[in-house]
Amino acid sequence: MPRWEPDSRGRLEEAALALYGERGFENTTVAEIAERAGVTERTFFRHFADKREVLFGGAATLEEALTQAVADAPGSAPPIDAVAAALVAVGALLQERHDAARQRHAVIAANADLRERELIKLASLSSTLADALRQRGVASPAATLTAEAGIAVFKVAYERWVDASNRRDLSHLIRASLDELKAVTAGR
Amino acid sequence: MPRWEPDSRGRLEEAALALYGERGFENTTVAEIAERAGVTERTFFRHFADKREVLFGGAATLEEALTQAVADAPGSAPPIDAVAAALVAVGALLQERHDAARQRHAVIAANADLRERELIKLASLSSTLADALRQRGVASPAATLTAEAGIAVFKVAYERWVDASNRRDLSHLIRASLDELKAVTAGR
Repeated sequence: MPRWEPDSRGRLEEAALALYGERGFENTTVAEIAERAGVTERTFFRHFADKREVLFGGAATLEEALTQAVADAPGSAPPIDAVAAALVAVGALLQERHDAARQRHAVIAANADLRERELIKLASLSSTLADALRQRGVASPAATLTAEAGIAVFKVAYERWVDASNRRDLSHLIRASLDELKAVTAGR
Repeated sequence: MPRWEPDSRGRLEEAALALYGERGFENTTVAEIAERAGVTERTFFRHFADKREVLFGGAATLEEALTQAVADAPGSAPPIDAVAAALVAVGALLQERHDAARQRHAVIAANADLRERELIKLASLSSTLADALRQRGVASPAATLTAEAGIAVFKVAYERWVDASNRRDLSHLIRASLDELKAVTAGR
């Protein structure tokens, strides 16, 4: 029986994360990633525009999932609860990919350009979230503030989650961070 | 009597903002900025590393002012109040430069690279603010969340302030945005 092998996209991702971790993002070539994944460079470029996209290609899926979850929240839910529900739902999706997320986080932390790219991705997530709230009829400054607050909560929870010493689920950490944000903004 | 002339740094800034507005950031050269300001290119480079720094050179002053204002807040003030006081103080400083801020904002809004740079600057302000809170003994996740919330408030207030239809002071808008953030996080 052949052992189970992930699809080429998954194999390329695994190979890339391993190589970025071993020799650094900037010292890894697409040829090396393809070789380790056992596919051609052509196959790499069918899945990713470049080696950076291996790290950021999931952003669109994340944005769609967030938008959908905000739209699905009960109509009566206050904006912050709609955002919390969306983040917890996304957190549950990401939970399955905990090991890859940790590897990815270490690669990004080690490279200034990648850290900037990650910030830009989070800002884009925040705009997406604000748009989704406006679709629910939330007024403009409140929509932006709620979305920014939600992304701050997500960021803090995510950083705890990828920390090796942490054992909690991302969804749990998102709820905990939201409670802390509520406490700090209330002046406690 | 010679008319009053700002120092060369101020003249260079004025000239650069005017040219970026007229012909776009990417189509303006350092030689043109220096010429319009009536100084040599050498003088330009004594003040700024490149033409982008004309737009972002104020970040260090802003970070220092924020840090100082957080440190100066009464020891008994809850973290969010220390941050609010710091932002209002910085808002008052920026108020004097309202016209330049509007010009600068329009230039940045028109250029994707500059928008990214602005995001990175705000993220750096947020880290500075979190560090200043830790110096006051605020624990780590609370410090990060309070700082992120503060920067979200600042961002929303700043965007209203540079909007041509707005007549309110930045400090006023910061207070109003903070009140809105408190309302949204409380689930109202």
